[in-house]
Order: sequence, then C-alpha cells, then structure tokens
Amino acid sequence: MAHQVSPLAPAAFPELPPIAGVRLAAAETGIRYKNRPDVLMALLDPGTTVAGCFTMSKSRSAPVDWCAANLGGGSARAVIINAGNANAFTGKAGVATVTAVAKAAAHQLKCKAGEIFQASTGVIGEPLNPDFITGALGQLAAEADPDRWSAAAHAIMTTDTFPKACTVKAKLGGKTVTINGIAKGSGMIAPDMATMLVFIFTDAALPAKILQKLLTRAVNPSFNCITVDGDTSTSDTVLMFATGAAGGALTGLRSADDARLKGFSKALDTLCMDLAHQVARDGEGAEKFIEIAITGAENDKAAHRIAMSVANSPLVKTAIAGEDANWGRVVMAIGKAGEKAIRDKLKIKIGGITVAKNGMRDPSYKESDIMPHMKGRHIVIETDVGVGKGKSRVWTCDLTHRYIDINGSYRS
Amino acid sequence: MAHQVSPLAPAAFPELPPIAGVRLAAAETGIRYKNRPDVLMALLDPGTTVAGCFTMSKSRSAPVDWCAANLGGGSARAVIINAGNANAFTGKAGVATVTAVAKAAAHQLKCKAGEIFQASTGVIGEPLNPDFITGALGQLAAEADPDRWSAAAHAIMTTDTFPKACTVKAKLGGKTVTINGIAKGSGMIAPDMATMLVFIFTDAALPAKILQKLLTRAVNPSFNCITVDGDTSTSDTVLMFATGAAGGALTGLRSADDARLKGFSKALDTLCMDLAHQVARDGEGAEKFIEIAITGAENDKAAHRIAMSVANSPLVKTAIAGEDANWGRVVMAIGKAGEKAIRDKLKIKIGGITVAKNGMRDPSYKESDIMPHMKGRHIVIETDVGVGKGKSRVWTCDLTHRYIDINGSYRS
Repeated sequence: MAHQVSPLAPAAFPELPPIAGVRLAAAETGIRYKNRPDVLMALLDPGTTVAGCFTMSKSRSAPVDWCAANLGGGSARAVIINAGNANAFTGKAGVATVTAVAKAAAHQLKCKAGEIFQASTGVIGEPLNPDFITGALGQLAAEADPDRWSAAAHAIMTTDTFPKACTVKAKLGGKTVTINGIAKGSGMIAPDMATMLVFIFTDAALPAKILQKLLTRAVNPSFNCITVDGDTSTSDTVLMFATGAAGGALTGLRSADDARLKGFSKALDTLCMDLAHQVARDGEGAEKFIEIAITGAENDKAAHRIAMSVANSPLVKTAIAGEDANWGRVVMAIGKAGEKAIRDKLKIKIGGITVAKNGMRDPSYKESDIMPHMKGRHIVIETDVGVGKGKSRVWTCDLTHRYIDINGSYRS
Repeated sequence: MAHQVSPLAPAAFPELPPIAGVRLAAAETGIRYKNRPDVLMALLDPGTTVAGCFTMSKSRSAPVDWCAANLGGGSARAVIINAGNANAFTGKAGVATVTAVAKAAAHQLKCKAGEIFQASTGVIGEPLNPDFITGALGQLAAEADPDRWSAAAHAIMTTDTFPKACTVKAKLGGKTVTINGIAKGSGMIAPDMATMLVFIFTDAALPAKILQKLLTRAVNPSFNCITVDGDTSTSDTVLMFATGAAGGALTGLRSADDARLKGFSKALDTLCMDLAHQVARDGEGAEKFIEIAITGAENDKAAHRIAMSVANSPLVKTAIAGEDANWGRVVMAIGKAGEKAIRDKLKIKIGGITVAKNGMRDPSYKESDIMPHMKGRHIVIETDVGVGKGKSRVWTCDLTHRYIDINGSYRS
C-alpha cells in the first residue's frame, strides 16, 4: 500500500554535509520490497566510538540484543540496517543471522565482529536469511560514498511517508564539528514496519562513555517523549557514532557535565528533538501534530505519566482528529493516569486559551474562541494538575481513519 | 448520531422477572436527549442493603463521590440515574446538584439523603441543573412499577447500540432468590457518553458488608477484565441492592466465605460476567469480540497487566479488525507490558491453533489454517509467557473505522 505524504512533513529534505570518517551505501536486496533499496551500510573509519539506546520491550529483536551486548566494546566500524524484516521473535535462527552478518562484514573490514552494529525493521516472526545482506556487502563497500545521506534516509523507510534527517553544527575542542542524523518511524510504535530507528553520526572526537551519557540525556526528552499509539516496538534503536575525524579531542575529559561539552550537547539535543518531532509528524494517518504539556505534577516522572496518558488516549486523539476541543476527555485521561492530580485545581489551556480551571469549565470560555486553533495542524494542550512542580512535554498525533487503513490491512 | 446495533449483540433482550421490593420508573426530562427517557429511578423498600464499586479515576464525578461517601451507611431507598450529562468536573456546582437531588428524593421518600444513590453519564464539564431531575421525582414515584426492566435498561443508554440486562436465580437460606442486573456502556471507557454503569438488584437478604465482598469478588474477573480503548471513565459505577424481600436471612453470617453463600455468589459471578461481556460486545464500532488468555506469568497481577496490554494495543485490535492473524503484534504487546516473559518460551495460540512456540513461528503453522477463525465473530488468543503460574483472562473488541466515526464527531 502506498501512502500519501503526511501533511505534517517538513517542506523539503535538508542538505546534509559529509561527515569525515563516514561513508554510506544502499542496496536493493529484495528481502521484502521490490525496486527500492532496503539495506543501508555506513562504513566508519577506525577509531570511531559508539553509543546506543534501545527499546524497553521485554521481547527485543536479535539485532537489538546484539547491539546492546557489543556496546561495551565502545568502538564501531560499520552499521548495517535492513528494512522489510525485523528479525524479531525468530529464536536461534535470528541470533545466527546477526552473527553471520557481523562475521562477514568483520572479515571484509578486517575488524572485530563486535564492531559491526545492526538494526532491522519489518515483519516480526519471519526468519531473515543472512544471505540477502552478506551477498550485498561487497557491492555496498565498493559503492560507499560520504555524500549519500538522502539515499540512506530512504533505504531505512518502511511505512514512513517521508525520509527524516537533520544536521547541526557545534564547537568542540576549538573545532567546528557536524552532527548528522537520519531516522525512520511512523510512531514509537508498531512492531511490523513502523519501528523507530535513528542513526546519528558526528566527526567529533569523544570517548564512548561520554558519548553514551550525552546521547541518553538527549534521547530522554525527545525520542522518549513521542508516541503514536502507545505501542512499543521490539526493535527501537538509537545508535550514535563519533569518528573523531574533526580532531579537537578534549584532554582530561572525565564527565559529561564538563563545561566544554555544553555546545555539543545542546546541538545534539536539538537534533534529537527535531528528528523525534519528524517521527511524530509521520505518525500513521496523522493529520495533526499534538503537543501535551503537563505542569504542577508531584514530580517530573508523574508529569510524564500523565502526559503520556493524555497523548495515548484514543478518545483524546479521535476528538482532535474531529477538531473537537473536547477537554472533558483530557480530564478523563489525567484521571486514569493514576498519578496525583487535584481535580478542583486542574487548569486546562488549549491553544493558549483557558478552557477549564478550579475544577470546572472556565465561565468565560467559548468554544468558538478555540476553533481556529483546532482547525490548525499543531495542537497545544497545556494542563496544570495543581499538586507540585513536576513537568513534562510530549508529542503525538491524532487518530484517524488512515491509522485503521494502514494497520488493519497491513500484512494482507 | 444513531448507530446500527452491534453485530455482537445478543439475539434478544432477556425476560426479567420482578424483584420484590424494587419498583422502577423512567422519565423524559430533556437533560440532553429529546423524545426518549433519560432518567431512571429505582425505588427500594425499607431494609434494602447496598454495595458498590467505582472508577479508579483520580478525577471522579460528583455522583461517584456521593455514592462512595454514603456506602458506609449500608442502606438504600432509591437509586436515580440520568443519561446525557455526567456531572463530572463540574466543581462545587456538581456537588450542589447531587445534594439537591438526594435531599428532594429523601424528602419524598421520608428517608435519609444518604440512602439516595445516584449515577450520571454523559458530557463532562457541563453544569447539570438539578431541576431536570427533582422536577420529575413526583411522576417517577407515581409511575414506579416492578415490571419495567426493559424501560430501565433503555433509559440509561447513551452510545450503547442495545440495552443490556441479565437475570439469574440462586438458592439462599432455603429460598429461591433472584438477581437482576442492567448495564450501559460501550466500553470501560469513554468519558463522554460511554461510561459503564451497572445496577444489580436482588430480593436476597444480605448484610451490606457481606454484599460488598461478594460484589467486589464478582466485579474483579468481569467488569475489571473488559476494555474497549483503555480509557477510564470519571463515572464508572457498579451498585448492588438487596431488598431482603425473599426472606431466608442467614443466621450467624460473619464471612463472605460462608459455604451457605456459595450458590448465590456463583450466580452473581455469572450475572456480572454476562453483563461485562455485553458491554465489551457493544464496544464502540465493534465487529469482533476478543478474548485474551494469558498463562505462565509471574503471578496473576502480572498476567492481568500483560493481558490488558494485548487487549488495549491499537495494533492488535486493528489487525483483528482486518482479520489478520498478526501474532507479531501480540509478541510486541507482551513485550511492552513490562512484566516478565521469557521470549524463547513464549507460546501463542489463536483459535486453538499454535502459531508460535519456543521463541519463533511454529514451523507447522499455516496462516490458512487460522483464517476461518479470524473471519468469525469471537477471536480467542491464548498465550503462555513461560515464567510461572499466573493467569488472567480479559475481553475486548476490535478497533474499526466506526470507532473513529463515533468518537471523532461525537460532540459536534
């Protein structure tokens, strides 16, 4: 099924500069799709460090297990990603596949198998024959080029309606460094073709442990704050690689809190937030981009749970799809989150207009005031739950007929 | 919007016998709907005991607060229910409304205000003028009749596509007693017109404390094991009244575990399960009734969480709507539940046919074997998660275009 491009997509694909030490290639291997690239390989120069964050699912895919097990080594020479088959819930055969791919690539690159990182997205439970990928390694290595970011972003797409990429620059150790990121995902979310995968590359010189801390910090308020349907993939993966080719390695760097990292850290945060929003904007069937801000919760964790409860509520999401400022459903979703909220102090704003306060409708609120906002593409719901100082901000999209179309007839 | 009757509805409304000590009347008050009864009053003879279970929402409606506060009194003389306005998130005005209704009814019936129980379902956040209800009390009392069960079940409907009722008999204290129940709800669920309300009446003679224990036990595996969209109403209410008119009060009754209660308890369980299934079968837009059974979990609570995670997964529900035996989404939903599950021991059956075991697809499984089951109305998914002895069984419905139609254009 071909889907129309999300109305929430950015106007254009950004121009991504090369990253010294990174070369990219994509190939058509026919794992599942025809006439499109479905395997991406990024070759990384020796000395590249690696960091990663993975799905919290208890039934993780074989490639996720592989990456998590090898992250401790701290170095990477390649990342290989395929679309069309998630290699998840594939038992021992799945482990054999990732091992075979890693060994073949390591042999070719003369590195350790543990330096080959992998990610897969696609159908769950179908064995993935490693030959599709190993058979393409020669071609991929031969064709690898620093300037193939658009092809790379396209090769990892599944139900995505647009390719996702972002680039930022920062100063680090007296050098200007670049961070490029590509992502795929039409939600947090789906176990089939809608897993979220993110690959970030930089020419900065950073030890793996510091890189990991910076990445984890950047992922929490961005990729961990988006949701499409509350479903969690077996394969969600964020991997970051730092080639060090820009030079400027910091001496005596011991902590991710080192003031010299500030600019880089901020740039990475910006990139992650941008890519995360692109994923939510490509939520399956999305017509509206929804921002939920919770303040006044017992603590930040409670605020996050409340925000996610609102963001994942099918009733809130269908109301917004219907351009209905149905704040009663927001009250319901706050109530069901199970976190402290003082009903008689609840305050709800939609599009900056107060609709409810002191436990009831704002007497001055008129639905007509809010209609222009509800008819827009970016809906903002702010709620203070009147308990403490905890806050959280999350992003999602509305729930439309196209979500049902996409997911109700997906495999057949 | 008028909705076609759910294809999962029972063939006919059951014949409910009178319950000695209970008289019913319904009135058209015009709170929201036109040309249909929207207020139900059940008059209860002196000596009637009461028990109740309520929503776990942290933003409960004024009538729920009222009922919970008065349950301790243990006796009831009337229950008054209105459809069209939930009297939820209505601040002090909401409290004033329930108080006014209780006082007016108590005055009329010459009882305490705390013996008047109430429930409301409908729009959230709109003030409910008590005059609609108090103005009808005279007519309701005058017209009350023991034989109005069908009218009663109709009067409390909102987005329901069929009225829900059940009757059972049991032996208690040497007498044959009757239990009648009526319910409304198109889900657990929605905060607008889809709250679940259940009213159970019996002529058995049981103290309020014992009644409460029996009711809580019956509610846990039934009403607490159904879900439509995971959304929790501010107003969910189950109230049970025992008039004692059948006689046969048990002497020396101290515990709900007393063997003499066994038959009654079992009959009550059956009635609650029947009504709960009717609610799930009237889930908004439902085309399929889905049963999820989890075994092998760490404990029953863990099993329940896993079962609810599967039952609430939009991806599982849309797959079933599409008649797609997409067990990969079941794996995903188990993984995201956050409870222990051994991936390589997972076993999944759909319609009694093993589709996956030992952490991968069953080699002998063919999708065609399962198609007749997927095309049916009652879908059964059984999963063993390979950890311990915990088990749970829950019921839900599929997620279809009609859910979006109903909820995306509800208020407008």
